Amino acid sequence: MTESIPSNLVLFTANNTWMLVSTILVFIMHLGFASLEVGLTRAKNTVNILFKNVSILSIGIITYALCGFNLMYPGEFSFGSFVGFGGFGINQPEGAAGLVAYADGAYTYFTDFIFQAMFAATAATIVSGAVAERIKLSSFLIFSLIYVAIIYPIAGSWDWGKGWLDQMGFYDFAGSTLVHSVGGWAALVGAYILGPRIGKYSKKGIIPIMGHSMPLASIGVFLLWFGWYGFNGGSVLSADPGPVSFVFVTTTLSAAAGVMGAMTLSWSLSKKPDLSMVLNGSLAGLVGITAGADVISPMNALIVGYIAGLLVVSSVLFFDRLRIDDPVGAISVHLTCGIWGTLAVGIFSSDHSLFTQFVGVMSYGLFCAISSLVIFLSIKKLFGLRVSEEEEISGLDLGEHDMEAYSGFQIFTVE
Amino acid sequence: MTESIPSNLVLFTANNTWMLVSTILVFIMHLGFASLEVGLTRAKNTVNILFKNVSILSIGIITYALCGFNLMYPGEFSFGSFVGFGGFGINQPEGAAGLVAYADGAYTYFTDFIFQAMFAATAATIVSGAVAERIKLSSFLIFSLIYVAIIYPIAGSWDWGKGWLDQMGFYDFAGSTLVHSVGGWAALVGAYILGPRIGKYSKKGIIPIMGHSMPLASIGVFLLWFGWYGFNGGSVLSADPGPVSFVFVTTTLSAAAGVMGAMTLSWSLSKKPDLSMVLNGSLAGLVGITAGADVISPMNALIVGYIAGLLVVSSVLFFDRLRIDDPVGAISVHLTCGIWGTLAVGIFSSDHSLFTQFVGVMSYGLFCAISSLVIFLSIKKLFGLRVSEEEEISGLDLGEHDMEAYSGFQIFTVE
Amino acid sequence: MTESIPSNLVLFTANNTWMLVSTILVFIMHLGFASLEVGLTRAKNTVNILFKNVSILSIGIITYALCGFNLMYPGEFSFGSFVGFGGFGINQPEGAAGLVAYADGAYTYFTDFIFQAMFAATAATIVSGAVAERIKLSSFLIFSLIYVAIIYPIAGSWDWGKGWLDQMGFYDFAGSTLVHSVGGWAALVGAYILGPRIGKYSKKGIIPIMGHSMPLASIGVFLLWFGWYGFNGGSVLSADPGPVSFVFVTTTLSAAAGVMGAMTLSWSLSKKPDLSMVLNGSLAGLVGITAGADVISPMNALIVGYIAGLLVVSSVLFFDRLRIDDPVGAISVHLTCGIWGTLAVGIFSSDHSLFTQFVGVMSYGLFCAISSLVIFLSIKKLFGLRVSEEEEISGLDLGEHDMEAYSGFQIFTVE
Repeated sequence: MTESIPSNLVLFTANNTWMLVSTILVFIMHLGFASLEVGLTRAKNTVNILFKNVSILSIGIITYALCGFNLMYPGEFSFGSFVGFGGFGINQPEGAAGLVAYADGAYTYFTDFIFQAMFAATAATIVSGAVAERIKLSSFLIFSLIYVAIIYPIAGSWDWGKGWLDQMGFYDFAGSTLVHSVGGWAALVGAYILGPRIGKYSKKGIIPIMGHSMPLASIGVFLLWFGWYGFNGGSVLSADPGPVSFVFVTTTLSAAAGVMGAMTLSWSLSKKPDLSMVLNGSLAGLVGITAGADVISPMNALIVGYIAGLLVVSSVLFFDRLRIDDPVGAISVHLTCGIWGTLAVGIFSSDHSLFTQFVGVMSYGLFCAISSLVIFLSIKKLFGLRVSEEEEISGLDLGEHDMEAYSGFQIFTVE
Repeated sequence: MTESIPSNLVLFTANNTWMLVSTILVFIMHLGFASLEVGLTRAKNTVNILFKNVSILSIGIITYALCGFNLMYPGEFSFGSFVGFGGFGINQPEGAAGLVAYADGAYTYFTDFIFQAMFAATAATIVSGAVAERIKLSSFLIFSLIYVAIIYPIAGSWDWGKGWLDQMGFYDFAGSTLVHSVGGWAALVGAYILGPRIGKYSKKGIIPIMGHSMPLASIGVFLLWFGWYGFNGGSVLSADPGPVSFVFVTTTLSAAAGVMGAMTLSWSLSKKPDLSMVLNGSLAGLVGITAGADVISPMNALIVGYIAGLLVVSSVLFFDRLRIDDPVGAISVHLTCGIWGTLAVGIFSSDHSLFTQFVGVMSYGLFCAISSLVIFLSIKKLFGLRVSEEEEISGLDLGEHDMEAYSGFQIFTVE
Repeated sequence: MTESIPSNLVLFTANNTWMLVSTILVFIMHLGFASLEVGLTRAKNTVNILFKNVSILSIGIITYALCGFNLMYPGEFSFGSFVGFGGFGINQPEGAAGLVAYADGAYTYFTDFIFQAMFAATAATIVSGAVAERIKLSSFLIFSLIYVAIIYPIAGSWDWGKGWLDQMGFYDFAGSTLVHSVGGWAALVGAYILGPRIGKYSKKGIIPIMGHSMPLASIGVFLLWFGWYGFNGGSVLSADPGPVSFVFVTTTLSAAAGVMGAMTLSWSLSKKPDLSMVLNGSLAGLVGITAGADVISPMNALIVGYIAGLLVVSSVLFFDRLRIDDPVGAISVHLTCGIWGTLAVGIFSSDHSLFTQFVGVMSYGLFCAISSLVIFLSIKKLFGLRVSEEEEISGLDLGEHDMEAYSGFQIFTVE
């Protein structure tokens, strides 16, 4: 041990370590999504959902390595700040041997890739919840592949890749729009094209289809909240104590306030404390603060989260009225609150324009809604999108996988 | 990248990062508590318990932001080192822009707050287990709110806030007393006032009420052990390699020894290896070492943990004899072993007086027992404390929430 | 705050913190193993498996503190680089007061111990899965104790303790052989000696025995993947940004490719997407890259993982043909892919010899297979190894523990 270690190298080490810890935290969010989705749906579709989630994660990571990363961070844009591409595979910057400092010394090239790769698969996973219990496995995997490989990175490049929206001043700190709404729009389109699950809407009205395991749903939500400290905290892109701890506080307060918002509204509407609403309330608060976690004050974060909690409950009721069947409330959590969070930056931060935020929200909405419409309809035409009625009734676990999730347990599969 | 970064700023970054990682670890303990409590109780009360745990966490964090933090770390005391208050809301120290170094450069103001906030909700969560399956949801939430907002911070200020017990030399490193006993006393009082669950004690003796999911209980214990590395490791209040790694070793050895202690005693008493006793044994070891994790040697940590494991088994049997019904063994884990751990500091560390430790234990006991008695009795008078007999028998999930935790599963709800 | 903090002390702090975070991540792998094993076996043996896993962890840690650590890192060898012993208990290096820099300043003595202790129990846990649902609890605990106390550390010393295989140039970065194969060989021997579970193989052929909870199995796999970032990332033995981020990328890509490998092969063989194969595929990819995570390029990591995914599916079918009953596929994941990963270093890294890797694989195979044969047969002779037929049919939970895992649930325990 000598005295000659430069202190900026040490800071580089500390920053890089935090980014890698954040990567791990975002990774475990995929277990959170899987648990939540499984918990809020029926036992007969459990294997199918777990299979989807493990597959998406793997397909997403590989796809992002092969082309997504270089579409999202193209270096240079080829088509007027709208699309750029840096080449196939992970390409270490020359002269750096692929391992040395990168991005202002905060972390390595490989850290950059792996942190972003964990984000990428998230967008597709969000879709998964809204189309659950009726979509064909292979069709969904094809959709995810295309969405993660092409749509998510191009959309992402507009802001985080220094594209046209970034140049315009649009601000989305950790992805209320770039991740959550991008997933949310596809969720909306997918749920709409697929139509509702059999039995959900009848002439008599809306018939709730209960999830089969509230402990799994709760485990999912706690893990998502847990991982969000990496999602938002890592988006500081360094371990800088001020901003990272600030982001921790706003993220936590917004999540907690989301719980309170969802609790007060749902309790007053239904006269019963509704666990699934409260769980979605915390996610609503988290999605809501994600765009502005570094620029919204702690006390305003309470307001952002509380409103997100009110919005998620209202939104779930609204989409149910429209008869758009979203088994886990993914559209309400990720799209509705993603939009809210993005606009909240314009409202609560004096440095950002509400109008620009609105332009960003609309641009992403148009691009993602149209893209997913085209992809979903093409897949529907080519391969079909929905399982057969018999399969849906007996469950996708038997139909698609010939396997039960809870072998030995007495379960009523007929609704 | 220049050479001019001061190395103390880099150390500040490393320390702050560790404190934030610890914060996340303490956060996930709340999932641990929820899983453990759910697993050790009956399926018919699952939604209720999950709802309580999500709510307490959120209420606890918001309450702590609004007033608890400034009661616990008042800066200056108003009433002779017994109570002080620094004002409502989170108040960034002036001149520091709320983001710069604080507390000897180890971490920021916001890191301090968020780490402490995660601790605060723990005390109320401990109570939750002991009063489970029969307490009214709203009454419990009111109790938690008051306990986290006022009692926990005032009690905490006596030692960690540099109050009278700290001045007297009382030592509680990470909270065997300040967190675990503070929760444990309220758990004891709550369980006593509520009375046992229907059917637990009959003329024929004690009728065990089995938990409905040992996997959930085990997940809970593993997550608690996992999070304890942040609870104890973060209580070093820096990333100083010596103390933090020392604390990791004592914490781990005590937990492992707690398992062995509970295993040997329960196996020899009942002639069967009892999983729930072994799970509580690891928690006993963790609570037991928490007060002295930085001052008790690794080999003595084995002794502390082993004795904690013996104590938790004896204590569970003892309280069952007294017909104080504690569905998850929270009183035995957190109160009995919290007292043991606090006294163990006086026994195994030559720097601390057993007498002073004893005075601390008794003072906290008096304050917390009386406070919770007053709060619980007031709530009982004003709103009632216990659900109706019919509701208890059919389960709080249906009674309080009109919802089942395991929709579709065939479950026997009648005991 | 003064300017006088040496920057190498700060680097020491950053490195040590990362090693402790890795320790926590390896710790939670034990919950991963427990969940996976429980999920892939029958409900009637759940308590038994959980009890085993909690116990092994505790026994493993204590044993490793008392003698394993000093067998594995003996300082000096007593018997020609084959066996050495540094004395009983954890012995802090003199003059360092047990808390100062150690091992080139990367981490403290206590960090070294606790990181290695978490690894040690893993080897025994691997065995647990292969012998599940029929081994006597006490006999298994005795086996684990001996294996962790003596066999694992001696085997480990050959490479990581600077023994004869290290001197020969054998390379195993994080333990494809030293941990996974060492566990895998004992798993093979144990499963062989015990014989298959009743009903698994009949004259009509192989009768699959389904696991009782695919959500638990999936939680297990995600947690194992999560913890592997500490297992592999921590094996860099510092927070050096280049190597650690490189290891993150190879580890992730191999895991994802393992999923794809298992998916393609199993889907094409059985015409159905098989969740348990896909789950084991990710573990296969992780075990496969573990030996060479720091020397195999990201694109080659995809190949290593994909082949591991193919291998795990083939291996499961192969051992089933041999009528060696491995309820969770532990032999295929840890032994088959452990061997593959170790050889892959010789294939994909020009710095290492395939022949030497092969010698290492064979040496560990001989030593571990013979050792476990001797231990298992001795235990069988002295105490018996397998539960009675009646107990196996009614389940080990009732037979060994007089307890049910899912009290209140309607479960079919007769196959």
